[in-house]
Amino acid sequence: MKKETILELLERRKFKDLKEKLESMHPVDIVEMLEDFGTRQAILIFRLLAKEEAAEVFTDMNSDMREDLINALTDSELEEVMGEMYVDDTVDVLEEMPANVVDRLLMATDEDTRKKINVLLQYPEDSAGSIMNVDYVSLRREMTVADAILKIRQVGINKETIYTCYVTEKRKLIGAVDVKDLLTAGESWLIEEIMDENVLLATTLDDQEDVAKTIKKYGLVAIPIIDHENCLVGIVTYDDAMLVLQDEATEDISIMAGVSPNEDSYFGTSVLQHAKHRSLWLMLLMLSATVTGELLGHYEKAMAAMPVLITFIPMLMGTGGNCGSQSSTLIIRGLAVGEIQFKDIFRVIFKEVRVALAVSFLLAVVNGIRIYIMYDQDIMLSAAIGITMMAVVVIAKSVGCTLPLVAKKLGLDPAIMAAPLISTILDTCTILVYFNIVTTIFHLRS
Amino acid sequence: MKKETILELLERRKFKDLKEKLESMHPVDIVEMLEDFGTRQAILIFRLLAKEEAAEVFTDMNSDMREDLINALTDSELEEVMGEMYVDDTVDVLEEMPANVVDRLLMATDEDTRKKINVLLQYPEDSAGSIMNVDYVSLRREMTVADAILKIRQVGINKETIYTCYVTEKRKLIGAVDVKDLLTAGESWLIEEIMDENVLLATTLDDQEDVAKTIKKYGLVAIPIIDHENCLVGIVTYDDAMLVLQDEATEDISIMAGVSPNEDSYFGTSVLQHAKHRSLWLMLLMLSATVTGELLGHYEKAMAAMPVLITFIPMLMGTGGNCGSQSSTLIIRGLAVGEIQFKDIFRVIFKEVRVALAVSFLLAVVNGIRIYIMYDQDIMLSAAIGITMMAVVVIAKSVGCTLPLVAKKLGLDPAIMAAPLISTILDTCTILVYFNIVTTIFHLRS
Repeated sequence: MKKETILELLERRKFKDLKEKLESMHPVDIVEMLEDFGTRQAILIFRLLAKEEAAEVFTDMNSDMREDLINALTDSELEEVMGEMYVDDTVDVLEEMPANVVDRLLMATDEDTRKKINVLLQYPEDSAGSIMNVDYVSLRREMTVADAILKIRQVGINKETIYTCYVTEKRKLIGAVDVKDLLTAGESWLIEEIMDENVLLATTLDDQEDVAKTIKKYGLVAIPIIDHENCLVGIVTYDDAMLVLQDEATEDISIMAGVSPNEDSYFGTSVLQHAKHRSLWLMLLMLSATVTGELLGHYEKAMAAMPVLITFIPMLMGTGGNCGSQSSTLIIRGLAVGEIQFKDIFRVIFKEVRVALAVSFLLAVVNGIRIYIMYDQDIMLSAAIGITMMAVVVIAKSVGCTLPLVAKKLGLDPAIMAAPLISTILDTCTILVYFNIVTTIFHLRS
Repeated sequence: MKKETILELLERRKFKDLKEKLESMHPVDIVEMLEDFGTRQAILIFRLLAKEEAAEVFTDMNSDMREDLINALTDSELEEVMGEMYVDDTVDVLEEMPANVVDRLLMATDEDTRKKINVLLQYPEDSAGSIMNVDYVSLRREMTVADAILKIRQVGINKETIYTCYVTEKRKLIGAVDVKDLLTAGESWLIEEIMDENVLLATTLDDQEDVAKTIKKYGLVAIPIIDHENCLVGIVTYDDAMLVLQDEATEDISIMAGVSPNEDSYFGTSVLQHAKHRSLWLMLLMLSATVTGELLGHYEKAMAAMPVLITFIPMLMGTGGNCGSQSSTLIIRGLAVGEIQFKDIFRVIFKEVRVALAVSFLLAVVNGIRIYIMYDQDIMLSAAIGITMMAVVVIAKSVGCTLPLVAKKLGLDPAIMAAPLISTILDTCTILVYFNIVTTIFHLRS
């Protein structure tokens, strides 16, 4: 148990041993450990970390702990940490802190970094510019491979990634060289001989999710980011892309459950914030469901004449909702990973209708047999519920697959067309279809 | 429109221009284009690709197209493509092909590769061994930095990634050296001086999802994989990790919508397969919903005595289901990204109950006012529905947050405890709670 060992060393004030232990730990693991410790202990341990490690730990920790730490550190300690941080990480930290803390942090950074920070702070949230790294290695076309390696040696030690170097001319991006190519090429070759001129790139204002998807699609280590004048201004690396994709998946999943997306963690969000993020949809869906209720009230006489009809309502509404959600979820995910596009709408509907016919036939038969056995071999009742079931499933799957595609086309987030909304819409359809079919078959007055 | 240009060049038989155009395209884009073309055209274009590009395109294309292509290529053409492919990609291809095609492919690979393939084919599906890459650069501790760079030059050209090199002694992993460190260290330094001995690693039998999560958590480019004798046998790279994480998210989302997970794409799955993947849950949920229906039938007399009660059923069942799904979804996702663990169960329940009280109070008030206005200022009815609403929401959120945690503890996939199952369970609770409250308040006989 590493955590216990660390605590013991801390209590016994064996700082030298403690320092050694911490050096062998990964910053990510140190952060996880500190989150379990008290503030006083966390600060003591933080002070024992080597400069570079301290900066990484500082970057990774949650914002509450970071604020406590900033309040505890002296100006010169803070300056040291900030000096080791990457500019893009500093910007991320600043965006989460209250104004008075931001002032203190900015005081602790040097003039040059402050300028870079200000540029980055101007990019819109969720843009490539807001997550890009401004540290990268740039080469010139007339350099030899040996020159290039020398340049990497000199400057590369502070760059977050050097796996791909970029070739620029008057700050414009003209090519890229993989470190692999540098190492496997002859020393006297020119960069322009080995550089790849077909460079995949993105611009500062591109959506971070699109940039992350490009990185994933092409298996890139990093993608260069250019500004509106086509000048190279930064790179987005694969590790940032992984986090963006995970956050986007979490956001989609939240919306699909009728929860407004939230960038904080589950425990990091207060009860009132949670309530706020969930109330809007609940309210909307609750009021929509009253329509279904009123409609149901409208068929009061039919139900009074044939009370058994009531018992099939939960099953029909449930099956309709589930069928619709299955379809909408598959389409929403297909849109998110780029496998389905709006132009596929007719292919999708044709496929879903056939799936619906197959599925509903099976459900209707199983259910028909159940009703036949349980309700005194009433074949008419079996048939009526079976026909309703098939109609409900076909409608549910058609609506379920169409709405996300339409939302996408209208520029809305397809994820809103998930289970909660689809079920509520389909509940009304189910009641309408059901009572229209049974009142006709059994000659009931509605 | 690149696609049109390509087709035109193909029709005019301008093969030289076509070849040039293709050389400037990324293999991923070529695959996307070929998917839109007919088989005959796709084969013609494939034959024009440079060897290495052809291997990448072959790896990325879908299995139907690949089978067509294999049937069209001569043995020597096939041999050439297979010779350029990475062993792990070859294995992926083999796993998807019918037996007769596999035989032909194996005939087209050399003895040495065939041995490697056989080893990889033995690892269980979804294990790190099944996705690892067996090509990597290994160094020895007594090498100098210059030796190491020389070795990378000699062998690295064929390795999928050389960003991290591994140091081995009698095939056991003893350290790792980042290419960045090689480039920034002095040429005469020894590898053992710059290698990192705290190497994060995984074993061949580890779950691929856990390995991918480790890569993401620590921002690694690659992670070394060791076998049961602690010998280094391969690496898993970040790009494979990204695909694994995306597939796992898709799998979770499918299960959460009551669809059995499926490795094929939406359009790549036949109608009958789709129907099969969706029927199981629908059947189960349909039969469970009959319980709710029977229960509802049980309160027939209460509804006959006070028909207005029927109209609130869709709203109460809908709100209960939505509240439960919100909670279960947030917990399922929190478990998936490692933010919530089983040990947090009481913290989670305490939080959800407070959220439920806040949310339900709001919903009860809004709904109470609506009922008061719409139903002749019937304050008792407003109160009865309000009390039911609060009870339903608190139960829904408690059940919704608890079940995924319990599933996790029992070794089940928490994603099964999502909207469809939770809603069905809660429907029964809602009906019970509702009729118990209203029969008491209005002195009805059930």
